[in-house]
Amino acid sequence: MKKIFIVVLMLVILGKQNPYAQTWAIALHGGAGNMMPEQFTKEQLDEYQRELSNALQVGINILKGGGKSLDAVEQVVRYLEDCPLFNAGKGSVYTHEGRIELDAAIMDGNTLGAGAVASVRDVKNPISLARKVMEASPHVLLVGSGASEFARLQGVEMADSSYFFTSKRWEEIQRVLSREKMGTVGCVALDIHGNLAAATSTGGMTNKRWGRVGDAPIIGAGTYANNATCAVSATGHGEFFIRNTVAHDISALMEYQNLSLNAAVEKVIMLKLAKAGGRGGVIAVDRKGNVSMMMNTSAMFRAHANSNGVLSFAIF
Amino acid sequence: MKKIFIVVLMLVILGKQNPYAQTWAIALHGGAGNMMPEQFTKEQLDEYQRELSNALQVGINILKGGGKSLDAVEQVVRYLEDCPLFNAGKGSVYTHEGRIELDAAIMDGNTLGAGAVASVRDVKNPISLARKVMEASPHVLLVGSGASEFARLQGVEMADSSYFFTSKRWEEIQRVLSREKMGTVGCVALDIHGNLAAATSTGGMTNKRWGRVGDAPIIGAGTYANNATCAVSATGHGEFFIRNTVAHDISALMEYQNLSLNAAVEKVIMLKLAKAGGRGGVIAVDRKGNVSMMMNTSAMFRAHANSNGVLSFAIF
Repeated sequence: MKKIFIVVLMLVILGKQNPYAQTWAIALHGGAGNMMPEQFTKEQLDEYQRELSNALQVGINILKGGGKSLDAVEQVVRYLEDCPLFNAGKGSVYTHEGRIELDAAIMDGNTLGAGAVASVRDVKNPISLARKVMEASPHVLLVGSGASEFARLQGVEMADSSYFFTSKRWEEIQRVLSREKMGTVGCVALDIHGNLAAATSTGGMTNKRWGRVGDAPIIGAGTYANNATCAVSATGHGEFFIRNTVAHDISALMEYQNLSLNAAVEKVIMLKLAKAGGRGGVIAVDRKGNVSMMMNTSAMFRAHANSNGVLSFAIF
Repeated sequence: MKKIFIVVLMLVILGKQNPYAQTWAIALHGGAGNMMPEQFTKEQLDEYQRELSNALQVGINILKGGGKSLDAVEQVVRYLEDCPLFNAGKGSVYTHEGRIELDAAIMDGNTLGAGAVASVRDVKNPISLARKVMEASPHVLLVGSGASEFARLQGVEMADSSYFFTSKRWEEIQRVLSREKMGTVGCVALDIHGNLAAATSTGGMTNKRWGRVGDAPIIGAGTYANNATCAVSATGHGEFFIRNTVAHDISALMEYQNLSLNAAVEKVIMLKLAKAGGRGGVIAVDRKGNVSMMMNTSAMFRAHANSNGVLSFAIF
């Protein structure tokens, strides 16, 4: 009888300590815009769903295994950067001068550590360079050739312009998307240790010039994470997201007005941002694992999953 | 009797319409750090006070005359950029490579319009380029050579490296300041039309490298203005100001918790930022003309004035 009691007690203790029993949640986006279903072929839509699913699975595997949200968001965004379907990394749109200039940011909600890069032209995975900025430099934001120099010192994988060559098929899809001037990838996650993280990566606006930088690498605008509140990654018309400090405003409404994640996201995206004329959306997760994905455009490539078995994909 | 009544009535109406009777307020800073009085000679301190006073007068003249807060903050910061005593414009510190790389931002609290530039090397007054970004481009943030290209297109005054040559005397003072790695100039103002504005300009950290960008050009971190709450310009260890979205956090505490300007500034600078290990300060003004100037370092070059006749200067 005593032995059975001890075994049961141990199982209870192990169960409590077993990280696999705890809550995790993840959400990702691949850009927002006023696209309509009829602008895509069935094959294109299938391909988007397949790639979003693959990317999500990368994050699920990390979180299920007790891994860190910071690793999950970095690896998911890396996957999306490597996929030519999205406007980040390999699939990045061209600037006015026919170059690519990439922006990315990552933030650790546990420490408020953050790293970001802007206007880099020769780094294969800007999100991983952003993480190096966070962990291996005393800085938060590095730009241009200086950021590339830091990348080389850190042994980050570089890529020449031929890597960013875009296929004819991609160009066709891009013609649809570029009219919206949107397209960014991002991921937010809660891990079983209770830590939130956010990551965003983008090629920016099609035909952008003058070294324009959008909201993605701006902590508090396109990317933000804080264990006290939520993790947010945004996509849309970046200038409006900067002026409205969208990501931090969502966090502030939760912190200072005790709004739920969903109510905070709704107020900022559907009311404040929309009223200001800003088009786009966000994905967000709070410390309880609630996920909110909301846009004031007709479409946002998005997906999420959690430890309760939820697994969802949507575009429109 | 009737005539006298009409004259009095007209005077009352004119008085109400007379913009000169209304409230204006202005504050500026020239950097914060853990400097002590004994590190400066009497002559150096006099020179600082004289330049802060001259800069403030530029703003007072604009605001007293019914001018816009946006013009006041731009012109005050231009004055400070042209003064070799401060780490902005002409007096900017050198990067690791012996160059200068300047950051600046301006924000209009009436429209939430904002403009910013980062890592520009050849523009005499980055704050005026930031204003051009706000008013003559669809963007908020331009960086590097792209920002310079935009500057030339806009007819903004350029400057070659000889302009940024710093005198021996300045270098001596700079040796004291640079140990703190701080030094930025900024200005916030309320005009008689009820509009708030903020502007910040900096040469960044001494010996910075890899294209490091601090908080000054980051809307919501080092610079923010919103007629609904306040205008803020920050100075200090920029990475902490970015991670803590300091300027927007002050605004959010006023908007969402109804804190007074001073209580919001105190909470963010003396509690949250200090707890995170971030050193520096802010100047801020609200829509009633209240001014708050607070730092968690031993010193911040600062000054303010308002329509009630207040005129003050302080360093320690």
